[in-house]
Amino acid sequence: MSHPVELVQAVREGQRLALARLLSLIENEQPQGEAALSQLYPLTGRAYIVGVTGAPGTGKSSLVNEIAKALRAKIYPGLHASRPPGVAIVAVDPTSPFSGGAILGDRIRMRDLAGDAGVFVRSMASRGSLGGLAHTTSSVADALDAAGFEVVLIETVGAGQAEVDIARHAHTTLVIESPGMGDDIQAIKAGILEIADILVVNKADLPGAENAVRVLRAALDMAGNVGGAEAGWQVPILQAVATTGQGVQTVVESLLRHREYLQASGLWRERGQRRVAAALEARLRDRLAERWHAAQPDGRYRDILARIVRRELSPAVAVQEMLEDEPAPDAVERHPAERAGARR
Amino acid sequence: MSHPVELVQAVREGQRLALARLLSLIENEQPQGEAALSQLYPLTGRAYIVGVTGAPGTGKSSLVNEIAKALRAKIYPGLHASRPPGVAIVAVDPTSPFSGGAILGDRIRMRDLAGDAGVFVRSMASRGSLGGLAHTTSSVADALDAAGFEVVLIETVGAGQAEVDIARHAHTTLVIESPGMGDDIQAIKAGILEIADILVVNKADLPGAENAVRVLRAALDMAGNVGGAEAGWQVPILQAVATTGQGVQTVVESLLRHREYLQASGLWRERGQRRVAAALEARLRDRLAERWHAAQPDGRYRDILARIVRRELSPAVAVQEMLEDEPAPDAVERHPAERAGARR
Repeated sequence: MSHPVELVQAVREGQRLALARLLSLIENEQPQGEAALSQLYPLTGRAYIVGVTGAPGTGKSSLVNEIAKALRAKIYPGLHASRPPGVAIVAVDPTSPFSGGAILGDRIRMRDLAGDAGVFVRSMASRGSLGGLAHTTSSVADALDAAGFEVVLIETVGAGQAEVDIARHAHTTLVIESPGMGDDIQAIKAGILEIADILVVNKADLPGAENAVRVLRAALDMAGNVGGAEAGWQVPILQAVATTGQGVQTVVESLLRHREYLQASGLWRERGQRRVAAALEARLRDRLAERWHAAQPDGRYRDILARIVRRELSPAVAVQEMLEDEPAPDAVERHPAERAGARR
Repeated sequence: MSHPVELVQAVREGQRLALARLLSLIENEQPQGEAALSQLYPLTGRAYIVGVTGAPGTGKSSLVNEIAKALRAKIYPGLHASRPPGVAIVAVDPTSPFSGGAILGDRIRMRDLAGDAGVFVRSMASRGSLGGLAHTTSSVADALDAAGFEVVLIETVGAGQAEVDIARHAHTTLVIESPGMGDDIQAIKAGILEIADILVVNKADLPGAENAVRVLRAALDMAGNVGGAEAGWQVPILQAVATTGQGVQTVVESLLRHREYLQASGLWRERGQRRVAAALEARLRDRLAERWHAAQPDGRYRDILARIVRRELSPAVAVQEMLEDEPAPDAVERHPAERAGARR
């Protein structure tokens, strides 16, 4: 199954082991993963991609589990077989856990979701830069999309711009808060409200839930005044209790209503394009940097770095010098002969 | 004062208005800012750069204010004039606030710090990508370093990898928690503990503070087992109450002790180099991408993007095709004449 063609075929047939293997190849940035994903790419673009973000302590993972189960039941009522695949969860944890952290988390989640073969969970921990993670998350979502999952929930730890970026490369962004957070003006990060299509106050059985809703409503109204809201969609502020399932159906209905709204308004297409554009640009930047480094004479970069450390050169001037040394791509493309002539 | 030479001179002389203007130029990515900073670069490399990170709601900003005041008093006891500059705070807020959010926050902080001319505060909100922000933060720290500030506190909203990255480009990383957070296993992000040189439980007058310390201690011990701790430095877990000032002196003493430890162990130099290397690489990647885009024939990138959106092409294959079209820099550098000849 290590050959891309067989792997691609097995993923198309809905084989879970093949899918898990493809996701591992993608996560580890193996060329076979990339090759297989390129072959599967024509099958992408159909899944409903939902970004879920929220601060630690909001009970985000439990709520995402409940939403996944309820979505699955709603989309394929009565279905217990594994095909069609249904709903996938991609849990992105940008902070690298100690040994086994992510795996332990997965086991807890799996137990939670046991008996529902239509919900697939994949945890991703950061191995390198966050840029790399945003990359890989996007490719993992593509693979799940190609494998036929109708909904892909991408869950990230909120509060940081980069996590928000991962989440916003989705059709719908759901932001989870919890009571108590709303009391602190710092906790309501305006940037997070700006990207929310749906807001959920989880742990709504705790004191302060009503207050959290009120504070969020006030903040949203303010956002509306500066153009944060889109015409035709009123951001709902819902309440839920993941541990009892209370309010989860309403969240699911809100998600499906938002999907309809996106499709009717043309935003579905627009957000899909934005997602593709971000994936392309990130990949391009990585490859440009790799190629440039590979072409450098041995030790040159290190020498320049040492000069900066000695404060003989600033980073800005160093980059200018390094890039001036070589012909810009346009000069090469347009006048290769002249340029070569001028150098002789 | 808009001419770089005059601006550089005024910043060197400690003029606050000139410094504020330089920081604005850097934040807005104006070429004059870059030019001035390159001239000031030989003056950098002396400041003690402290990254402070913590989740929303931990009272981070108040604690940073108190630490700054106490540090200032400790470094320059009895000093009330504005020179030498003392301590600077760079408050990085990666989520873009609604109109005036950052400014309002600044006013509150300024009032808090009123009467202490030795503490300088600068808030930075995200304008573009987080990559850009990490960039700019690094340059702002360089400018403050060149302007003679002995300590630069870079405060970020924790939880996300990118914020952690901003903070870790520092000599010392201080992580702030608060009671209640520690109860939730999710709240203790292992990655954050891994980078902490000093841990502070703020709001230590609230119930649960002792428990938070215990949970953090257990998590740290576990981290020690997987190699998170460095030889010669035991990560302290301190308690503080920013609103009353309780415990702030201990935090300051811990910071100064960590500075001594870094200098004695050679880590000061190592961390400084890591910071410079990250700044260089980020800038290089930006410029490579800019240059590549500028050299593209009109509409080519857009056409390729449209093909990907239509699923005729995967992003990976698209990037491969785009970069194969043009000679790799090494081929150009090494054999310009041959290459040009082969093309005729």
